[in-house]
Amino acid sequence: MNGHTNGHTNGAKLVNGASSSYGDGQAVNEIRKFVIDICRQNGGGHGGSAIGMAPLAVALWRHTMRYNPSNPNWFDRDRFVLSNGHAAMLLYAMLHITGYKDMTHDEIKMYADAKAVDKATGKWKSTICHGHPEREVPGVEVTTGPLGQGIANAVGLAIVSKHYAATFNKEDHQLIASRIYCTTGDGCIQEGVALEAMAIAGRLGLSNLTLCYDNNDDTNSKVRAMGWHVIDVFDGDTSVENITAALEAAKLEKDRPTFINIRTTIGYGTSTAGTFKSHHGTYSDDDAAKHLASGVTSTYQLSENALKYFKFTVDEGRRLEDDWNLKLEKYSTAYPKEAKLFKERMGGKLDFDCILTSLTVPSELQPTRQWNGTVFNELISKIPNLMAGGADLWNSNQMGDQSTRIFDRLHPEGRVIRYGIREHAMASISNGLAAYSPGGILPITATFFMFYLYAAPGVRMGALSNLQVIHVATHDSIGEGQNGQTHQPVELDSLYRAMPTLLYIRPADAEEVLGAWMTALAAKEAPSIISLARDPAVTDIPNTSRLQVQRGGYVVLEKENATVTLVSCGSELQFAYLAAERLNSDGIPTRVVSMPCIKLFESQSQEYQDTVLSESPHIISVEAYVASMWARFCTASVAMDSFGYSGLGRENFARFGIDDDGIVRKVKKHVEESNGKKRRHWTLLK
Amino acid sequence: MNGHTNGHTNGAKLVNGASSSYGDGQAVNEIRKFVIDICRQNGGGHGGSAIGMAPLAVALWRHTMRYNPSNPNWFDRDRFVLSNGHAAMLLYAMLHITGYKDMTHDEIKMYADAKAVDKATGKWKSTICHGHPEREVPGVEVTTGPLGQGIANAVGLAIVSKHYAATFNKEDHQLIASRIYCTTGDGCIQEGVALEAMAIAGRLGLSNLTLCYDNNDDTNSKVRAMGWHVIDVFDGDTSVENITAALEAAKLEKDRPTFINIRTTIGYGTSTAGTFKSHHGTYSDDDAAKHLASGVTSTYQLSENALKYFKFTVDEGRRLEDDWNLKLEKYSTAYPKEAKLFKERMGGKLDFDCILTSLTVPSELQPTRQWNGTVFNELISKIPNLMAGGADLWNSNQMGDQSTRIFDRLHPEGRVIRYGIREHAMASISNGLAAYSPGGILPITATFFMFYLYAAPGVRMGALSNLQVIHVATHDSIGEGQNGQTHQPVELDSLYRAMPTLLYIRPADAEEVLGAWMTALAAKEAPSIISLARDPAVTDIPNTSRLQVQRGGYVVLEKENATVTLVSCGSELQFAYLAAERLNSDGIPTRVVSMPCIKLFESQSQEYQDTVLSESPHIISVEAYVASMWARFCTASVAMDSFGYSGLGRENFARFGIDDDGIVRKVKKHVEESNGKKRRHWTLLK
Repeated sequence: MNGHTNGHTNGAKLVNGASSSYGDGQAVNEIRKFVIDICRQNGGGHGGSAIGMAPLAVALWRHTMRYNPSNPNWFDRDRFVLSNGHAAMLLYAMLHITGYKDMTHDEIKMYADAKAVDKATGKWKSTICHGHPEREVPGVEVTTGPLGQGIANAVGLAIVSKHYAATFNKEDHQLIASRIYCTTGDGCIQEGVALEAMAIAGRLGLSNLTLCYDNNDDTNSKVRAMGWHVIDVFDGDTSVENITAALEAAKLEKDRPTFINIRTTIGYGTSTAGTFKSHHGTYSDDDAAKHLASGVTSTYQLSENALKYFKFTVDEGRRLEDDWNLKLEKYSTAYPKEAKLFKERMGGKLDFDCILTSLTVPSELQPTRQWNGTVFNELISKIPNLMAGGADLWNSNQMGDQSTRIFDRLHPEGRVIRYGIREHAMASISNGLAAYSPGGILPITATFFMFYLYAAPGVRMGALSNLQVIHVATHDSIGEGQNGQTHQPVELDSLYRAMPTLLYIRPADAEEVLGAWMTALAAKEAPSIISLARDPAVTDIPNTSRLQVQRGGYVVLEKENATVTLVSCGSELQFAYLAAERLNSDGIPTRVVSMPCIKLFESQSQEYQDTVLSESPHIISVEAYVASMWARFCTASVAMDSFGYSGLGRENFARFGIDDDGIVRKVKKHVEESNGKKRRHWTLLK
Repeated sequence: MNGHTNGHTNGAKLVNGASSSYGDGQAVNEIRKFVIDICRQNGGGHGGSAIGMAPLAVALWRHTMRYNPSNPNWFDRDRFVLSNGHAAMLLYAMLHITGYKDMTHDEIKMYADAKAVDKATGKWKSTICHGHPEREVPGVEVTTGPLGQGIANAVGLAIVSKHYAATFNKEDHQLIASRIYCTTGDGCIQEGVALEAMAIAGRLGLSNLTLCYDNNDDTNSKVRAMGWHVIDVFDGDTSVENITAALEAAKLEKDRPTFINIRTTIGYGTSTAGTFKSHHGTYSDDDAAKHLASGVTSTYQLSENALKYFKFTVDEGRRLEDDWNLKLEKYSTAYPKEAKLFKERMGGKLDFDCILTSLTVPSELQPTRQWNGTVFNELISKIPNLMAGGADLWNSNQMGDQSTRIFDRLHPEGRVIRYGIREHAMASISNGLAAYSPGGILPITATFFMFYLYAAPGVRMGALSNLQVIHVATHDSIGEGQNGQTHQPVELDSLYRAMPTLLYIRPADAEEVLGAWMTALAAKEAPSIISLARDPAVTDIPNTSRLQVQRGGYVVLEKENATVTLVSCGSELQFAYLAAERLNSDGIPTRVVSMPCIKLFESQSQEYQDTVLSESPHIISVEAYVASMWARFCTASVAMDSFGYSGLGRENFARFGIDDDGIVRKVKKHVEESNGKKRRHWTLLK
C-alpha cells in the first residue's frame, strides 16, 4: 500500500508482524499454492493466469494500491479492474488475504463450486463468488469476463477520477487522488473494444490509469502509437520489486496513461506452465508441492505469516480513510459551497423532476431527435452529474450542446466526451463512468440506434451490472431513410426488449420524450435506451402524457365496444392514430394504445394491463420492426419481415405498408377475413 | 488499368482517343464536378469524401486495377472495397465512367433520390443505387456503410485470393493474380473491427491487399506495429501520379499488406472544404463552377473527353478476361485434374449430402458441441470449399481438427484461420471470404454463442448481403455453467431469430446436429448459426430426425387429445421430453414438438404448421432464454426472465425451473389454474 513502497522484503526484513524470514517471495509462493489448492479441489477454475500474476498481485495489494478493506466503498480508494476476468480466483484470494470481511475462507472455497448445495434444505448456499468477478461482490469494482470490457471500464473510471479532481480539488486540498489499476492478458488487447478504449485513453491523457499487461507479446509500439507511456518488466514471474518500481514510475507520469508490459508465464512453476492447458487449471500433487510454503499442509490453508504479511492492510486502510475524512472536513471549512455539492455527488443525489415536469412541449411538429436535443441541453446544463458523449454522430444525434465544456486533457472538468467512431468502447467506458461511485456521475451515450449493435456487448454488461447509463439512439427505424438497410434497424429492438434489466423506451412525440427521460433518470439500477426518430412528425397525437410513459403503455384514443385495438410507439404511433380515425369513420370501431416501453407495461398489475388492452377481438401492434415481443399480447401485427430500403422516410413507411394507408388496408382485410372464424395464433398482416 | 501505369498525363499526352489536352487533372476535376452536381440536385449525398478521393479513384480505375466492365464477375478481377461506404457516389460514378452497363446515367441520377416514384403508376422506379453500396449492384463486391466492416471484408477477400493462388497456381501457370484494393477514412480506422482485422492481415502477411487511407491523421506507427508496409502520399488532393506510384510500389511488397496514407481534403475545392459540413455535401453554384470542365454546362454531364479517357477500359477489360481464359485453357491441358477441381470451385459446387446422410450417430450420450466437432471434422476433411476459423476458443468449441492445415503466411493453402480473440473481425472477414466468389469458399466461424454478440454487426451484414457463412456457436445457454451470467446468453436468440434471412438453428441431439448442417449447407444465400450445448445430454430423445430438422419443427412425441403440447429445442428438448412422460403418467396428456429453427417452421404451409402445433389447449414453449418469438404460436412459456448464474449446467436448469422437475411443476400449476377459464394472452409460467 501507499507509504510502504520502500518496504520490499525478499525474506530479509521484519515487516508488520510477519516472521523475519517472510517476504514478497514467500507471499508469492503461498498465493500460488492457494490458487492451485482451490483449482484442484474444484476441478479447474482458470488458475493459470492467477498463478502467473501472483507477483503483480503482491506488488499491487502489498506495496502500491490505496484501499480500505473495512470499507470497500471508501470514496477515494484506488480502483482495481481485472480485465482478464477469468483469473477471478486471484482477485478473490487477494480480497481474502488483505482482510475484506465478506471474502471469508468458506466463500473462497465455493469459487467455481456450483455443487455447493445445502444437503439439508436442497437449496443453494448463499455464495458471492462466481466464475468471473461480479460487481455485487464487495471489493469488485466492475463485472468482467467478456474480454476487453474491463479495459474500457477502467478508462471510464479514470475519466471520473480526473473529472472529480478537476471539479473539486483546490491547490491546497487534493481531495481526489484515486488512481485506476487494470490488469489484462493478451486476449483483452486483441479485442476491438480494448483498442478503441486505449486510443481514447491516450488521446485524453489519462495519467491516473495504469494498465498492467500480463504477457510476453511485443505490443509496445502499437500502444505507444496510441499515446501511452510504456514500461517493461522482464522478470514478472519472480520480481515483486521490479513490478512495484514500475507501478511507482507510472504515478510520476503526468501526461499519459501507463502501460506496464510484464513478462509472465501462465501457470508458472506447474507441469503445464506456458501451455493452453494451464488456462483452465487442473494441477497435480507435484504442482501443489512446488509452491508449498513451510508449515502449510492442508489445502486452502494460508500460513499465519502470510496473513500477517497482508493483514496490516486493514489498519492501514482505516488510517487512509480516516486521513481522507479529515481532509474532507478541512475542505468543507475552506470551501463550504463546493463541499456541499461534493457530498451530494457522493450520495448520488440527482434532481430532475422539476426540470422535466415544467418543460413545455413545442407547438410545431418536429422529429423526436430534435426535441430530444433541446431536452438534453436543458438537462446537462442544469444537472452536474450528467456526463455525455457521442460516437462521432453528435451533430446528427442533435445533441450538440454549445455551453457544456468538452472533456479533454486540458479540461478534465468538461462533461462532454468525444469518443470518436468507437461505439463499443463508448458503452463500456460509460459502465466505468457509472461504476466509479453510482449516481455521482450519470453517463449518457449517443449514436444511431443501428450502431448500438456495435455497442451491444457493453450495453449488456451495464444491464447485468445494474449500472445506470442512458443511451440516446437516434435514426431508429426505416424512417431514417436514405442511408439504407445497413443503417436501418428492424431486429435490434428484439435484442434490447429481451435483455433483462434494460429499459428500451421508444417515445412517439415531444411529450413522450419528456416521459422517457423521467423514466430513464428514475431507473437508478438499470441502463435505458431512449429510441428516437429522424423522420419528421406528420401529425399531433392527442392525449400523450409524460407521466403515463412511466407505466409503459396507456390509452390515447378510447372507443367503446371496439373491434380493433392498435398498439404502437415511436413514429408509427402517429400512423396508427391516423389509421384509427379512418377505421372509425369506416365503421370499424378502433382504439389506440401508446406503448413506449413493453417491459414497464408488463411490470404493471394484470388488471391495469387488461384494461389498457381491452376486450377488443383484434389487438394489433404497429411498428416498423420485426414483431417478436408484441406477440405476447397482440393477436396480429403490422410489422417488417425484411431488411429496410434506401428511400426517404415517409416513402419507406408507405413502401412497407406501415403508414396510415397501409395500416387501414391491412387491418380491414384482416378483420374481414377473420369474420366469424377466430385465428388461434398471432398473425403477421400482409 | 494494369499495363497503363506509365500512361500518366497531366494534360500533355494524347491517350486513348481523348483530346491531347485531356489528362488525369481534367478527369479529377470533372469527377468532382459530377459528384457536386448530383449532391446538389438531390439535396445531399455524402459528396465530401467522394470529392476528396477523386485523384485516388483516377489512380485506381484508370491506372491500376484489373477489371472487366463487361463482366463484373470475371473470376480473376481485382476486387475493390469502399469501406467508407458513405462515399458510394464515387464508386457509382467510377462504375459509370468506366462503362459498367447497368450503371447508366439515369441510375446515377437516382442516387439518394428516394422520390424517384413513377408518377403514372405510383410505384417506385427500379433503381440499383442506394445511399450506401449494396452488393446486388454489379461492380459492388461487398455491402458497406457501417464503418470498419469493409476493411474486414477486404481482409477476407485477400485471404481467398492468396488461398486460391496457393491451391491452384503452378510455377508456370499464375492463374490467380487478383489483388484487393480497399479505401478507408479515419472513421473505419477507429472502429475496433477494423483494428482487429488489420492485426490479422498483418499477421497473415496478406501482401495482395492494399488499403488506401484517405486522411491526414498520423496512424502510421500504429499500423506499422500491426505488421503492415506503410507508404505516404502527401499531395493526395492533386497528384494522381504519386498515388498511382504508391499503388505500384504496393504490388512489389511480397510479405506484408500495404497501407497507403493519402493526405486529402474532404470536399476539396468547395466552400465547405475540410469541415464536417462537407460530409453530407450540399454545394453552391460557386462550388460547382470551380470544378467545371470546359464544354460541360448542364448538371450530371460528363464531357466526351472524360468518357473517352475511361471508356477504353471496356476493351481493355475484355482483353484481360480473354487473356485469362486462355491461361485457364492452357492450365486445363497441363493440369486436367486441378482444372476440374478449380472449375467446380468457380461454379460454387458443394457436395455434402452423402456425407451427412451416411453418418451414424453415436450410441453414447454426449454434448451436442462434442458430436458437432466430429461432424465438422468429417466435413472439412472431405469438402475443400470449407474454410473455418475460431476466435481463440477453437478447443473449447471442440472444432480442433488435426488434419487440416492452418492458414498462415507460409501456408496460404491452409483452411483453418486463427483469428485470435477478435469475434467481430472474424464474422466480417468471413463475409469477405464468402463474397470473393460465392460457393467457392464457404466460411465457418466458431466461438461461444454469447460472443456472437461481439460479432453481431458482422453477422448482420452477412445476412443483408445474402452471404452463406456458417457460424458454430457453442456454450449456448445457462447450461454452460460455471462461467456465469457474463457468458450465458438469455436474450441473444431474440436478436438472431428476428434478423431477416439468417437461420438460427438449435439442434437437440446428435441426429439433429446432422440436420442442422444439412440445413445450413443448403442455404446458399443466407448465413446460419448452429447453436450447440456444452452441457452433457441426460437422455435419448426418440424420433428426432436429421431430415425433419429442415422443416424447422416436427412432432417427436404424439398423443391423441392432448391437453398440452410442449415445444422445445436444444438441451431443453430432453427435459421437455422427460416432463411429458411424467405428465402423461400423471393424467395430463402431453405431446412434444422439436423446433430447432422457428424461421424455417414459419415458412412451411399453414396446414403443416397447424398439424404440428395441434389443437391442444395449451401450447407451451420450453427454452432457457427470454421468450420472445415463441409467443407467436405458444399460449405460455417455460423460460428465463433474468440473467443466468454461475453454477454447474444441470443445477442451473433446476435453479431456474427449466429441468423436467421445473417443467412438470409449472405446467401442472398452469393447467390447474386455467381450468375452465381461458387466459387470453401468452403467459410466462412461474
